[in-house]
Amino acid sequence: MPDLDPDEFRRLGHAFVDWVADHRARITDHDVQPAVEPGSVRRLLTDGALAGGLPETPQPLEELLRTVDEVVVPASTLWQHPGFFGYFPANASLASLLGELLSGGLGAQGMLWSTSPAATEVEQVLLDGFARALGIGEAFTFDGGGGGSIQDSASSAALVALLAALERAGGGAWRESGTDGRERVYVTAETHSSLAKAVRVAGLGARALRVVEPVPGTVSMSPDALAAAVAADIAAGLRPVMVCATVGTTGTGAVDPVRAVAAVAAAHDVWVHVDAAWAGVAGLCPELRHVLDGCELADSFCTDAHKWLLTAFDASLLWVRDATALPRALSITPEYLRNAASESGAVVDYRDWQVPLGRRFRALKLWAVVHGLGLDGLRAHLRGHVAMAVDLAAKVRAEPGLVLAAPPSLALVCLRADTGRGPEADDAATRTLVERVNASGSAFVTHTVVDGRYVMRIAIGAVTTQPEHVAALWQRIRADSAALRREPVQPTA
Amino acid sequence: MPDLDPDEFRRLGHAFVDWVADHRARITDHDVQPAVEPGSVRRLLTDGALAGGLPETPQPLEELLRTVDEVVVPASTLWQHPGFFGYFPANASLASLLGELLSGGLGAQGMLWSTSPAATEVEQVLLDGFARALGIGEAFTFDGGGGGSIQDSASSAALVALLAALERAGGGAWRESGTDGRERVYVTAETHSSLAKAVRVAGLGARALRVVEPVPGTVSMSPDALAAAVAADIAAGLRPVMVCATVGTTGTGAVDPVRAVAAVAAAHDVWVHVDAAWAGVAGLCPELRHVLDGCELADSFCTDAHKWLLTAFDASLLWVRDATALPRALSITPEYLRNAASESGAVVDYRDWQVPLGRRFRALKLWAVVHGLGLDGLRAHLRGHVAMAVDLAAKVRAEPGLVLAAPPSLALVCLRADTGRGPEADDAATRTLVERVNASGSAFVTHTVVDGRYVMRIAIGAVTTQPEHVAALWQRIRADSAALRREPVQPTA
Repeated sequence: MPDLDPDEFRRLGHAFVDWVADHRARITDHDVQPAVEPGSVRRLLTDGALAGGLPETPQPLEELLRTVDEVVVPASTLWQHPGFFGYFPANASLASLLGELLSGGLGAQGMLWSTSPAATEVEQVLLDGFARALGIGEAFTFDGGGGGSIQDSASSAALVALLAALERAGGGAWRESGTDGRERVYVTAETHSSLAKAVRVAGLGARALRVVEPVPGTVSMSPDALAAAVAADIAAGLRPVMVCATVGTTGTGAVDPVRAVAAVAAAHDVWVHVDAAWAGVAGLCPELRHVLDGCELADSFCTDAHKWLLTAFDASLLWVRDATALPRALSITPEYLRNAASESGAVVDYRDWQVPLGRRFRALKLWAVVHGLGLDGLRAHLRGHVAMAVDLAAKVRAEPGLVLAAPPSLALVCLRADTGRGPEADDAATRTLVERVNASGSAFVTHTVVDGRYVMRIAIGAVTTQPEHVAALWQRIRADSAALRREPVQPTA
Repeated sequence: MPDLDPDEFRRLGHAFVDWVADHRARITDHDVQPAVEPGSVRRLLTDGALAGGLPETPQPLEELLRTVDEVVVPASTLWQHPGFFGYFPANASLASLLGELLSGGLGAQGMLWSTSPAATEVEQVLLDGFARALGIGEAFTFDGGGGGSIQDSASSAALVALLAALERAGGGAWRESGTDGRERVYVTAETHSSLAKAVRVAGLGARALRVVEPVPGTVSMSPDALAAAVAADIAAGLRPVMVCATVGTTGTGAVDPVRAVAAVAAAHDVWVHVDAAWAGVAGLCPELRHVLDGCELADSFCTDAHKWLLTAFDASLLWVRDATALPRALSITPEYLRNAASESGAVVDYRDWQVPLGRRFRALKLWAVVHGLGLDGLRAHLRGHVAMAVDLAAKVRAEPGLVLAAPPSLALVCLRADTGRGPEADDAATRTLVERVNASGSAFVTHTVVDGRYVMRIAIGAVTTQPEHVAALWQRIRADSAALRREPVQPTA
């Protein structure tokens, strides 16, 4: 038999587990972000471990650990490093890896209920449990007529929500005739680009995107502007299909007024999708649940367990208010997938909730996380990071030469230099601050643009990030900022 | 810190590895397909381990192993059981799980080259290596101007291929204006339903699907019929966008004449996508590579490492001839994803090759498979199953009361009862044969319909399936068939 036998797997599995434990224990020995040139890994491999192409004969699997240490780790951004403050976190907790291991061990393919009933029903129970724990409302549970599913990403969740919206808006004609060029989808300038991508993938074209103006002085969607845009489109013979409200924008963590947006949408039967990819999990903490105000009115709600909720990628949680909506949009049943359970209507076939046919048993890693850490552990994780952000924001406010570029949101702090020498000088200084943090190797931050100004984003949330890591980051920013203020003014390019 | 510390992970990780080793070693203690009622797992959990909802406090993770043993395994279809002959295999080899463990341990998110360079470049090197090992041609390698990527499934691969085809056909106008109702996509009656799903998702509607007639006496696409359909559509002002040729249909493993199909498509600049989800990996064996004849002419080619190539789901391999095609169709770049490496044009950003933004480091599990087993091991795995199928088909041919329902293809054998009492009696007998195999617990098969007749599909290919497992299946089918022939004729319903 070509595969490892179970005893070889036992021996190697222990060694690979030990590698992971050692890697995580010593992760701060490495820089967060590697300094590598494009093509360098390919060259190392094609000149080294994979010279001559793929191996013809079996090689000792322990060797792979050495190659990973020598070639892969030095060319990897360490998202699990406590100094990772870029983008949003991607929590691959060690607890979740245990669940992942079970999932691989079982090797179930849960495209249909009947192709592995436990894979579907465990997911249903967990998603019902998380809907309740997040406080988004009983309507999103299977018990309440809705239901949740694990998608690979918030991008895919937005796409399938849009497809369900198109199906509903067209009364099913969309399945036969496709899009007709009159559909419109409402977002803001701060909505994640995955919505524009979903609109493109779904064949609507960029012209279908309506960028709604914000409430003056904010970046949050104006319900009045939304109402006006929808009314104008209807008057022009167009068809408002979906509005995406964001809870926690990628740029600054801003929150759209979901309750008011949903009221506007309800008047015109427009599907409301809430993209709470990063921030939504905060709903587990009662004192933070205000960010989800109004989400109980949405048609679909998405938050990622793989961002800030300790569950290794991929595990994006998508709930819909109507459990039949996604299957109505997505189901196509060839003969070979027909089975008595599906035809009874008594089961959920998750293939009809997503684009891919096949699916892994992803619920096990989510289960391992909540079983091993408890909801209390998840809350402690979130609260710890929010407290670090509150503290950091207070320090920024008190620091000459630095300003908050936006109100802090949960565990996201956006700041920029304030040189007193105008926007160009500020931007140049902020760019330098970002570069110096990242060149240090001990921390990694990314940037965005707010009101046309270059901004440093500090997204606190890696699994192992503790107050001392944020303190070290702050010491560096503060020192670099002070040093920049002492340097002579550089001519702008 | 809420997560396990590395030493707890080490201890638990060993226990979980041991669970997987034990589960695989004793897998034949269980029935392949469980006998469970819809809702039974949900009830067991909500009355048991998850009574009262998700746990508030941390629970011992070892408990999860007990719950999995008591609740999950008895309600799981065991796709890794040597008696699994359903659908197509889903090989979660133990070797691949080692790579999966490394991927989780690193926890990299490879949406951009810059967000973890090794994740992208290892994937590039492996996909180049597999393109060469499969013999699909240097044009599909990054070195040759094309390139490969790991998608979650052949469904998603077909979707992104279609999007690239739409972009190319519309000269980019599609990005702004969406679909226009004139696009047409060519398939056969045997093409996988994921193509119809892709056409729906992309907003073309079912009317865009042209089901091309087969070569008479076969189920394979007729190039002449394709040419006629394309010409008629062009004459009618429609726009042929893509043709999907299948290498190894889901029903019977039939192969479309890719070379001739590609010649027709080339004359009208129609994108050729080859769906070789199951059968494509056979190209690793020179004596089986004939199934890929003409695939070097395709625009995109997909085969699943997670079906018959020992790599745990998900790992669908998609190559395109033009490395810029998918990014042209799918790229949208907000400020926060801008970076110097992407703007240099010197790197591949795999987010632009797929719908989801985020992505795991899936190449590691594919690497573990080919490193640990070697191409020779992969070939032995494929050849072994093909030999078993050849042997089984010979036995069916020699057996009174049974006939092959289609020519055997690689490791797929389709058979049905031949009672001599007409189609209805044959179908009833075949149904009974399928039910009896599946009720036995020691094997699991699925069905399809060929020429309107109910057919048993035997897809040989599980990681551990050896000749004795196929022999046992055959003994049962043969005995059941003989018994059925001795039973009195049942009145039809």
